[in-house]
Amino acid sequence: VNIDNRISKLKSFVAEDLQKMDQLIKELLENRESLIPMLANYLISSGGKRLRPVLTLLVAKMFDYAGNQHINLAAAIEFIHSATLLHDDVIDESSLRRGVATANSKWGSKASILVGDFLLSQSFQLMVQSGSLKILDILSHISAMISEGEIRQLVSTHNLQVTDNDYIAIITAKTAVLFAAAAQIGAVVSQRSAEEEMALYNFGLELGIAFQIIDDTLDYAATQETLGKAIGDDFLEGKVTLPVIIAYHKSDEVDKSFWQRTITDFNQEGEDLQTAIGLMEKHDAFVLSFARAKQYATKAAGRLDIFPEHEVKTILLDILTFALERSF
Amino acid sequence: VNIDNRISKLKSFVAEDLQKMDQLIKELLENRESLIPMLANYLISSGGKRLRPVLTLLVAKMFDYAGNQHINLAAAIEFIHSATLLHDDVIDESSLRRGVATANSKWGSKASILVGDFLLSQSFQLMVQSGSLKILDILSHISAMISEGEIRQLVSTHNLQVTDNDYIAIITAKTAVLFAAAAQIGAVVSQRSAEEEMALYNFGLELGIAFQIIDDTLDYAATQETLGKAIGDDFLEGKVTLPVIIAYHKSDEVDKSFWQRTITDFNQEGEDLQTAIGLMEKHDAFVLSFARAKQYATKAAGRLDIFPEHEVKTILLDILTFALERSF
Repeated sequence: VNIDNRISKLKSFVAEDLQKMDQLIKELLENRESLIPMLANYLISSGGKRLRPVLTLLVAKMFDYAGNQHINLAAAIEFIHSATLLHDDVIDESSLRRGVATANSKWGSKASILVGDFLLSQSFQLMVQSGSLKILDILSHISAMISEGEIRQLVSTHNLQVTDNDYIAIITAKTAVLFAAAAQIGAVVSQRSAEEEMALYNFGLELGIAFQIIDDTLDYAATQETLGKAIGDDFLEGKVTLPVIIAYHKSDEVDKSFWQRTITDFNQEGEDLQTAIGLMEKHDAFVLSFARAKQYATKAAGRLDIFPEHEVKTILLDILTFALERSF
Repeated sequence: VNIDNRISKLKSFVAEDLQKMDQLIKELLENRESLIPMLANYLISSGGKRLRPVLTLLVAKMFDYAGNQHINLAAAIEFIHSATLLHDDVIDESSLRRGVATANSKWGSKASILVGDFLLSQSFQLMVQSGSLKILDILSHISAMISEGEIRQLVSTHNLQVTDNDYIAIITAKTAVLFAAAAQIGAVVSQRSAEEEMALYNFGLELGIAFQIIDDTLDYAATQETLGKAIGDDFLEGKVTLPVIIAYHKSDEVDKSFWQRTITDFNQEGEDLQTAIGLMEKHDAFVLSFARAKQYATKAAGRLDIFPEHEVKTILLDILTFALERSF
């Protein structure tokens, strides 16, 4: 089964809920100052995988949740994610995402900053409508964690002292906690036990870590065509991600000086990206990064052991496979 | 009584609460990624008037509120305001605020964007701790309104078709609703009637509108020394504020072509700011702007008629005078 089929399959399973979420998002954005629907619809409809809200919808389905708060909350999660993407692209000065021009490159960074702020505030309005202080507590907490993770990533740029533990802490905060909360909330609305909630939180967390490791690996190991943007963006920004950390720590003095010049001193020349990729291949950085992602995916799969067989459980396990096998 | 004395007086009235709020803010920021306390403390301690949280604290005091949720909520309001300032300064590319270098000019716009996001998320965590869905509803709603107001201001830049009604709508959303919510929340925590809540909401709203009109007027009419930043920043950014709208609509064809060149076409030359100020004086734009602010302040004062005499009521009326008479 190829990846595209897999994504279609899991989405078709919650197709009706996803459609309701899309409708809600559309209603929340229309009749707003025109930049808001323009940027938000552009971003949300431009090929995003919507994995995070899908997690919430799937978990709610696994527990036969009969209400409709999961639609609101899935939209809130998609809004938090969209706000992050808008601000990320400004910060990284990115011009392409998923093969299309970024919002900041089309409408300017000012619009992206403000529409991101609007979406974040709007996500809180949606949570308030859920009427659950517990859910507000979870999501306001992870929303602050995401910003703190982004800040930690920012100050870690150009810093080769960043260890793989630091790296895992950064991607946990900036990426994985939102996956975690998305899965957990499907259990919270369904009023499941604390144990089940925690299992889904950890499932989402480890899925998110695996997902981000693969993302950071593909930034060097993919082709521009499949990735939808130029490869090596992280290198060109001096970001210290897992493939860099692995290659750096296995380097001899000569190779170390290459990393110091290109990442720490940020003095890059024409062929440096190719040299970096060559050093990563030489030190098995891609294989080792992939293995690390697989460890997390395996742990995530184990979190679902406490749940009985269910069609959704199979799909959740499928998402783990997708996270590892995707090439974009 | 001069303005500085007035501010000291009103702050001394809630000095203990303000100190508790400062302590809470300090605790929330310490042990965070270092950029967070650095930017946030810099901003919060750099001469801000803290009018918004002071409003919450004063109103709670007027109603003899005996709990401590007002401290949390005053901090949440200060965080929303601080987040807005950080993002505003990035968007306006400002280098000075209140006479000191802006955070973005010291630490870069990336740090300002992310720390702003963190403060906004943190403000929601504080609201969740209040345990009141009603307060969360009020503040998440106005938080989205603020972003939408900022967006509307952004798209109105360089647009001389903006009317004074448009202008009032923009400053209501971007500035006044936070004053309104700050005052209202003092009544909400004190469990006052809907009528009293609404009176304070409207008091804050009209105070905020008056405050922003004066702000926009001082941007042309003040001196750099008292303003703490260069005068004419709005002009240099092509913003269409009340003094511009008044002068433009009273202009003959020759003067109109000046405004079209400098604001619409945004083709400014050396002496244009002085010419703009001259045209504003010629058309009484400062006097008329001030009169408009005073109208709102008068309406705001009337909102307090339903409350009995109280030391805090006198101070709230004093804030209106301060808003009109300040020169910075």
